[in-house]
Amino acid sequence: MICSEFDIINTYFNYKQQNRNDVNIGIGDDCALINISEKQQLAITTDTLIAGIHFFDTISPEDLAYKSLAVSLSDLAAMGAEPTWISLALTLPNINEEWLERFSFILFKQLNCYGIQLIGGDTTKGPMSLTYTAHGLIPIGESLTRNGACKGDLIYVTGTLGDSAAGLAILKSHLTVNNPNDRHWLIQRHLRPEPKIAQGKMLRNIASSAIDISDGLVSDLSHILKISGHGAIIKLNWLPISSVLSRQVSLKQALISALNGGEDYELCFTVPNINLSILESVIINNKEKFYCIGQITKKSDGIRYFYNDKEISFNLVKFDHFNNNINNIYND
Amino acid sequence: MICSEFDIINTYFNYKQQNRNDVNIGIGDDCALINISEKQQLAITTDTLIAGIHFFDTISPEDLAYKSLAVSLSDLAAMGAEPTWISLALTLPNINEEWLERFSFILFKQLNCYGIQLIGGDTTKGPMSLTYTAHGLIPIGESLTRNGACKGDLIYVTGTLGDSAAGLAILKSHLTVNNPNDRHWLIQRHLRPEPKIAQGKMLRNIASSAIDISDGLVSDLSHILKISGHGAIIKLNWLPISSVLSRQVSLKQALISALNGGEDYELCFTVPNINLSILESVIINNKEKFYCIGQITKKSDGIRYFYNDKEISFNLVKFDHFNNNINNIYND
Repeated sequence: MICSEFDIINTYFNYKQQNRNDVNIGIGDDCALINISEKQQLAITTDTLIAGIHFFDTISPEDLAYKSLAVSLSDLAAMGAEPTWISLALTLPNINEEWLERFSFILFKQLNCYGIQLIGGDTTKGPMSLTYTAHGLIPIGESLTRNGACKGDLIYVTGTLGDSAAGLAILKSHLTVNNPNDRHWLIQRHLRPEPKIAQGKMLRNIASSAIDISDGLVSDLSHILKISGHGAIIKLNWLPISSVLSRQVSLKQALISALNGGEDYELCFTVPNINLSILESVIINNKEKFYCIGQITKKSDGIRYFYNDKEISFNLVKFDHFNNNINNIYND
Repeated sequence: MICSEFDIINTYFNYKQQNRNDVNIGIGDDCALINISEKQQLAITTDTLIAGIHFFDTISPEDLAYKSLAVSLSDLAAMGAEPTWISLALTLPNINEEWLERFSFILFKQLNCYGIQLIGGDTTKGPMSLTYTAHGLIPIGESLTRNGACKGDLIYVTGTLGDSAAGLAILKSHLTVNNPNDRHWLIQRHLRPEPKIAQGKMLRNIASSAIDISDGLVSDLSHILKISGHGAIIKLNWLPISSVLSRQVSLKQALISALNGGEDYELCFTVPNINLSILESVIINNKEKFYCIGQITKKSDGIRYFYNDKEISFNLVKFDHFNNNINNIYND
């Protein structure tokens, strides 16, 4: 039985076709990767967001513009790509000029901020949804991919985890946060994630693999492990938890949110020992903060969790659009 | 008041952005055109099709795969591009394995036929829709665009017009065709249009402008006229009407269907006198049939219609997704 988004792709859309010589990576990574010249590769990613499934019907046009673009650009960040051109297929139930004005104002503000040009799309009438196809360029041989982690590589993330899930919980009235600044900060982490474009570019030639954290750390790290055939140790006490999240929930809740909460849009990446000194200099030169959270191990290990030196067992449910028990997270 | 798809694009999505140096054409033609190397340009087009608006809910998965891909590839054909890679964002209300198997079988059959690789996309749960972003390559300087028609250029189309509209009318029980072969042929012209990829490539360096006929000849030719600041004469007695269509409807109905009926996905293009002999040799060498239907005139002429040498006036309604009087053509 086909029961998830990934099964659909693997079963029906990934095996029947001829492969073109110019396609370096097709389906299966954050972006496709195409050889377009002797110097550069083209990264292409497509993302659909549907009202009531991927965002609340009540979201403001500004927040929707911000978040929907960030979701798409995050895939480019995960490949180390420089974003260039984007198309937007926008389906709206009716024409609301104020909504369009507010949405497009933020969309173009963000596009201009990243040096991206909107080069086309489609506007249609129907139930509200957005599909972006985002393009980016990468010097030949410098792309980050999911494939490449080796035993012994250290695992890093680019920022604190679990904040977005907490922000969503606040919006759904599943979490009460009285301090207005903390409440605002967590909700913004959910509605206005920052795609880690600059960080992805910094990691070219340093990271052995990378992915963006859209479905949750464990779920996304698992893609890296599956493709490279390895396991991992995660050091729970090394997971970066924001001070704001720490103030609102128990340590256990914060850790589960960090491991399993989706939509942080940080990058998870692995670095071989030989590149650690280069990574250190990149961190210093860019005043960047990356967080080591564990290490790649041999396959039979699966993912093992340690707090200090004690092994812990977790029961984690993966986020999946077609998995009914957690389906329609914006609609319950 | 914003009342059409084109107004939305012009008002909200086409003026607020910085232009990148590598974008040759952004919004406003059948595809965007990007400079990606010294030899080639990249054509990119995005199309959304929504159940109940762009196709009947009852369409077979095979027909949907065929037609939805053709709609997208037709835009590449209109630029003279060679199709290369495509992404598909597919939104489905539920997982129907038989439907997916049948849809993907035809999709990949057609993709392989054109040498295109599916390089990504997204599968989501929601009201059924498909968004394709199709890519193609064109040698530098050889693209066809909407801009370039000059006074005196002859206007051509690549095939008979109005058949698709008649096929749709049959499916909606607005037209009765008793002959089963004729009925089948007209319906196939609607459900399985052939994107004119080969013809678009033949017209590189010959046509001064081109567009695909998706909304109807008059509507699409008007884009060519608007951008080049010219008018046109259409010779009604030169319009290619299939013998099948001629057998079913009056001459007047056939002509209106040819002028105004959408979704033929033929190309409309203009050719300067200086290129007519090259065009002739291309036609002979490729055993191709193109139909001259009129001529570009000065702007103040608008579009004028002649039958033999007598001027005729028509009252034509443009197809537009947001124009209520003809909205939801698949849903009435």
